[in-house]
Amino acid sequence: MASPVEARILRGFRDYLPEVMLPRQRMLEQVARVFESFGFAPLSTPALEYADILVGKYGDEGDKLLYRFLDNGERDIALRYDLTVPLARVVGMNRDLVKPFKRYHIAPVWRAETPGRGRFREFSQCDVDIVGSDSIMADAECLAVGASVLKALGVERFQLRVNNRKLLTALLERVQVSGNAALGVLRTVDKLPKIGEEKTRELLATENKLDTPAIDAVFAFLKLAPEELNSFFADSEIGLKGAAELHELLKLASELGIRDCVAVDLSIARGLDYYTGTIYETFLLDLEAIGSVMSGGRYDNLLGMFGGESIPAVGISLGVDRLFYGLQELKLVREQASPTQVLVTVFDESTRAQAYQVAATLRAAGVRAEVFLGAGKLKKQFQYADRKQIPFAVVAGPDELARGEVTLKDLKSGTQSILAIGALAGAFGA
Amino acid sequence: MASPVEARILRGFRDYLPEVMLPRQRMLEQVARVFESFGFAPLSTPALEYADILVGKYGDEGDKLLYRFLDNGERDIALRYDLTVPLARVVGMNRDLVKPFKRYHIAPVWRAETPGRGRFREFSQCDVDIVGSDSIMADAECLAVGASVLKALGVERFQLRVNNRKLLTALLERVQVSGNAALGVLRTVDKLPKIGEEKTRELLATENKLDTPAIDAVFAFLKLAPEELNSFFADSEIGLKGAAELHELLKLASELGIRDCVAVDLSIARGLDYYTGTIYETFLLDLEAIGSVMSGGRYDNLLGMFGGESIPAVGISLGVDRLFYGLQELKLVREQASPTQVLVTVFDESTRAQAYQVAATLRAAGVRAEVFLGAGKLKKQFQYADRKQIPFAVVAGPDELARGEVTLKDLKSGTQSILAIGALAGAFGA
Repeated sequence: MASPVEARILRGFRDYLPEVMLPRQRMLEQVARVFESFGFAPLSTPALEYADILVGKYGDEGDKLLYRFLDNGERDIALRYDLTVPLARVVGMNRDLVKPFKRYHIAPVWRAETPGRGRFREFSQCDVDIVGSDSIMADAECLAVGASVLKALGVERFQLRVNNRKLLTALLERVQVSGNAALGVLRTVDKLPKIGEEKTRELLATENKLDTPAIDAVFAFLKLAPEELNSFFADSEIGLKGAAELHELLKLASELGIRDCVAVDLSIARGLDYYTGTIYETFLLDLEAIGSVMSGGRYDNLLGMFGGESIPAVGISLGVDRLFYGLQELKLVREQASPTQVLVTVFDESTRAQAYQVAATLRAAGVRAEVFLGAGKLKKQFQYADRKQIPFAVVAGPDELARGEVTLKDLKSGTQSILAIGALAGAFGA
Repeated sequence: MASPVEARILRGFRDYLPEVMLPRQRMLEQVARVFESFGFAPLSTPALEYADILVGKYGDEGDKLLYRFLDNGERDIALRYDLTVPLARVVGMNRDLVKPFKRYHIAPVWRAETPGRGRFREFSQCDVDIVGSDSIMADAECLAVGASVLKALGVERFQLRVNNRKLLTALLERVQVSGNAALGVLRTVDKLPKIGEEKTRELLATENKLDTPAIDAVFAFLKLAPEELNSFFADSEIGLKGAAELHELLKLASELGIRDCVAVDLSIARGLDYYTGTIYETFLLDLEAIGSVMSGGRYDNLLGMFGGESIPAVGISLGVDRLFYGLQELKLVREQASPTQVLVTVFDESTRAQAYQVAATLRAAGVRAEVFLGAGKLKKQFQYADRKQIPFAVVAGPDELARGEVTLKDLKSGTQSILAIGALAGAFGA
């Protein structure tokens, strides 16, 4: 055994202790349940990939953030940066997957960012994607899944905001900007809700070198109502295509019964260059400032990256940390140090077997029941329950047990009641 | 975007496609549910640690298997090798954790082994540990959790085999072997069930350099009945302590109602040098050859590795891959390409909104329902369901829908029935 070293954790990395991990896991279980209720199946890929599978997919900045190294066999490998490129690899290696292939994946990714408030080097992504369908029904299904997830988590006020990248492409064609410059304009426009019109105009002029007529055209576009899109883009094939897709998406949202939580927001641009159609962002209306909690869009050319024909795809990704933070702020999660609902105390060794039996009966009825490990003073056993935030305790002395009874104590209120063992689970609604 | 590279995966790593991932995830969810029913709480730690946290904990061989590298900031880091050392680090960094601290952790670990049949470079571990209790009740709880897990997964014939490291220590003292040589003897004895007595005697003589009286003493020990341990070790304090612990464990197994699936096996040695008391292995009696599916033991000195006082601990670790393989062999898991229970077909655009409504009704009742993405020939929609192993389809034309009815088709048998929409979920027992 090596000489003792100081116990410490890498900066930008986190332990999730039970009081956070329990509600976080509950949230992700609920999310997975909603995904599966729509027919999305789980897919898992390795943490490590050949570096050349990942390099060049996230831009130069992204490449620099890869955890990349040589393994013992001198292979150039890296930890995954997201869940989308591994999906593309799986689709590339398994050409016979039945399409549409609907998968979800909840897993950590690694980026060697400068750690900071809310920015970590290891964080979880939670993606749903539909691969192999160019129907706008697939785009709409991502909206429906997103709305269902938030409703299942108890969020009442939220809005899914949509746009279509084709409209932005048409706009950029009109103001004659293309390539990296176009991406720069999109990134500036994306900031509008945060920095306001004046500052956005300034950035478009200084950073993106747009002239005043071009900037005016951008803002004329941003202020359009959805029904004005067709006339605005009357002379643009791609603009009309984008408008048609957006209108179809809104119609489907109505058919899905979620039209009232969907809004068009033409300023949504999404910084990534691979989107080709619908793009999404999602806001908790009582916590807009935390930013989008679920974002994504259609990317019809990305999945061809490993050779073969390109495959249409659309997906939405849930920001696990940000959504969990939002739920905490909205008081929709409860920290819990222990999953245990009831501590079965141990009076002494002579009644221990009966304590085990009481706990087994509770568990069989679906109640999470823990037997105190040891015997000794009841006060000490209650203290343990208290420090672990266990809400109830069962106390049973030899006399009670002989009558087939136990005492159930509510550790918060201090109230207690005597119950027949057979009626105990019922007190937990089980 | 980089020029296309070939889609490929690192050797020793695996994708889990939905047909395997779905039942695997169901298994792990069930395991987690059992862990929580005993009061174990989830803990999560990062994939990456400072290398010096891990190095020197797994022996020289283990150190060589670490995925260890310098990050962009020249920090010497490594991927975790197991879940026990990270637990020790967490305990070292959080001295105020309420004890006993009962945690579980299901997560991948990485070892740069030579890949081979059943040996992977990334695989999942699934550990429960009780930290901070020296009561044999904690040792017994690990047995109870293990038995409950296997029962919950539908395994009927299994055996938890126990031994106590103190007995082996006493035996090794008697034959005057210590240090690394002692560990070598334990590893040879561990092979007994696989290689038989004759070969084991041979190895003890040739590899471990034991003389014949010593080898005879080893086999005299191995053949003892539990009730003979006290007289065999009458002159050994540690031997008597081990016997007392083992007897206490068996008594607790009786009180827990699991005595009939627990057996003493004095040949269980476990290769790791950190065990100090109870040790476990678990066999599926209809598949003994696959080896132990759940192993562990008490390790009272390990958690002091990061300075501070040593903390007693006991735990058991489930071999996820091996157990899943066992369940497959026992026909206790069903491969599924999709979680969907019923495909709601789309007759045409005019009835699409109603198809969405039918699916929403089913989902609200807990039935996993997927709407076909598109319209078009029913035959094509049925083919999709068939290829995804979706068992049922709902068909509804405009006339049926006008009557508030749909047709539910069993895609395996081909039988179908007409149901009121309100009665549809009931057909799935929901």
